[in-house]
Amino acid sequence: MSEIVSDASNVAACVSNTVAENVTASSPIGVFDSGLGGLTVAREIMRNLPNERIVYFGDTARVPYGNKSKNTIVRYSRQIVRFLKTQNIKAIVIACNTATALAIDEVREMAGIPVIGVIEPGAKMAVKATANKKVGVIATRATIHAMEYTNVIHRIDPEVKVLGQACPMLVPLVEEGWIHDRITDEVILRYLDDLLEHGVDTLILGCTHYPLLRSEIRKLIGDKITLINPAYETAIELGQMLEEKGLSNTTPRNLSEPHPYRFYVSDDAGRFTDFANSILPVDVKTARIVPIEEY
Amino acid sequence: MSEIVSDASNVAACVSNTVAENVTASSPIGVFDSGLGGLTVAREIMRNLPNERIVYFGDTARVPYGNKSKNTIVRYSRQIVRFLKTQNIKAIVIACNTATALAIDEVREMAGIPVIGVIEPGAKMAVKATANKKVGVIATRATIHAMEYTNVIHRIDPEVKVLGQACPMLVPLVEEGWIHDRITDEVILRYLDDLLEHGVDTLILGCTHYPLLRSEIRKLIGDKITLINPAYETAIELGQMLEEKGLSNTTPRNLSEPHPYRFYVSDDAGRFTDFANSILPVDVKTARIVPIEEY
Repeated sequence: MSEIVSDASNVAACVSNTVAENVTASSPIGVFDSGLGGLTVAREIMRNLPNERIVYFGDTARVPYGNKSKNTIVRYSRQIVRFLKTQNIKAIVIACNTATALAIDEVREMAGIPVIGVIEPGAKMAVKATANKKVGVIATRATIHAMEYTNVIHRIDPEVKVLGQACPMLVPLVEEGWIHDRITDEVILRYLDDLLEHGVDTLILGCTHYPLLRSEIRKLIGDKITLINPAYETAIELGQMLEEKGLSNTTPRNLSEPHPYRFYVSDDAGRFTDFANSILPVDVKTARIVPIEEY
Repeated sequence: MSEIVSDASNVAACVSNTVAENVTASSPIGVFDSGLGGLTVAREIMRNLPNERIVYFGDTARVPYGNKSKNTIVRYSRQIVRFLKTQNIKAIVIACNTATALAIDEVREMAGIPVIGVIEPGAKMAVKATANKKVGVIATRATIHAMEYTNVIHRIDPEVKVLGQACPMLVPLVEEGWIHDRITDEVILRYLDDLLEHGVDTLILGCTHYPLLRSEIRKLIGDKITLINPAYETAIELGQMLEEKGLSNTTPRNLSEPHPYRFYVSDDAGRFTDFANSILPVDVKTARIVPIEEY
């Protein structure tokens, strides 16, 4: 009974936040990314908000987003949000730095439910962490070009110097599986050279693939620089937001529940599930293919 | 006057080859690729068939194709062919190994004009070139997986041993501009190690980006191995095919002609023209954006 009461009170809270009326606290969270990288965000949600159900969409037919234009990213993000909304979700997590940087305003405008991106939580934590007010950001070309980390950090503290470095090789290296690898070390050092030269004391891993390189980066730069993982910060902030809006799921998952985590992709489900199983704490059996261009 | 006569006789030839009636020998050739790589094929057509006009389409909104599934590549290729057909083209060149491997039959079925891909010309030349009947192919994961080079080579000579190696890092390295680079050298050597070990005497550069790494590969493997550039072989075979079908353009380009080469993309025209200008023998001022999903 307590579950039903809890849901009912949450529905009231939802409505006051312009959430669709059939959405309750037990509805899933919609999480999307250009492909595989957003699974690091899903992983942090699973670890830190174990009662939440997730519907994940990876746009594997059009991956990567990192070298594409704002118009294209906005169009793709809108299609994905229209699909996710068919899944009765209560909130959206844009688990992709590029889509957050280029399309979060457009997604918020159309969503009708709370939307959180990965940039703001990561930027806030970086401002807290930096002592010398020098923050480095590594990300895709599109994310760096959009300057969104810089904008958010400067809204909090205009005195923080933000140095961005586009690292287009790091996603292919992770997807090739060359994680603990001499070649990857050399690529990382080349990209970080300038940021280290400028003495940043905080480094934002501004692409959802990069947490998979965290231990390698840590090994290369030593322990004097604070590494910020926006995936983790986003999960924490998501938890607070759901709490505030009365949307936290209080019903623990149980073994008889068929699909607490559902995965959808636009292409090539086989490779997706292999990757998902290599990084998630749960077993991913299938990912369904969605004709995303039709949304 | 001689031009008009030439066109008229070619129209007759076209019709007998089920080409649309308004297509003539002076119509352009449609060339398409997942993005930038196919420009190496366009370059060879410009060099070897200087009278031919070209309409190029690069699917920069959905690049790369190399890790995507057959269904997706077929759907994308069909949309592109429908667009190219609006440009009154007389023939289609699939300037992308992945699209050739996965979609050439489907493109031929719908095109109604002659279609040539990059794989058959490259495979034929490799069979001619090999003395020890051991041919290596480097390409994207999707091209290697599709086995199309192996299939074509075995149709010509079943005794040739074909060894494939997927090289997913090479496209990002070329697009990052790290061409004459220690890191690229190490990646190339890692990928080629197994093929060299097996003693291939002929190596097909089975992705349209790879000719841009040719001198680097040559430097690393010495001069005992024949490198096959399918882009060049395709331009030569295209010339022969146009000749046979009476579709060769005999009208030289002249300086007053406004657009002998027209470029279209699905996204991000700026980066495309930069890349095009770095490798083509002509000045590319603009590439128009086409909403390819609508075709």
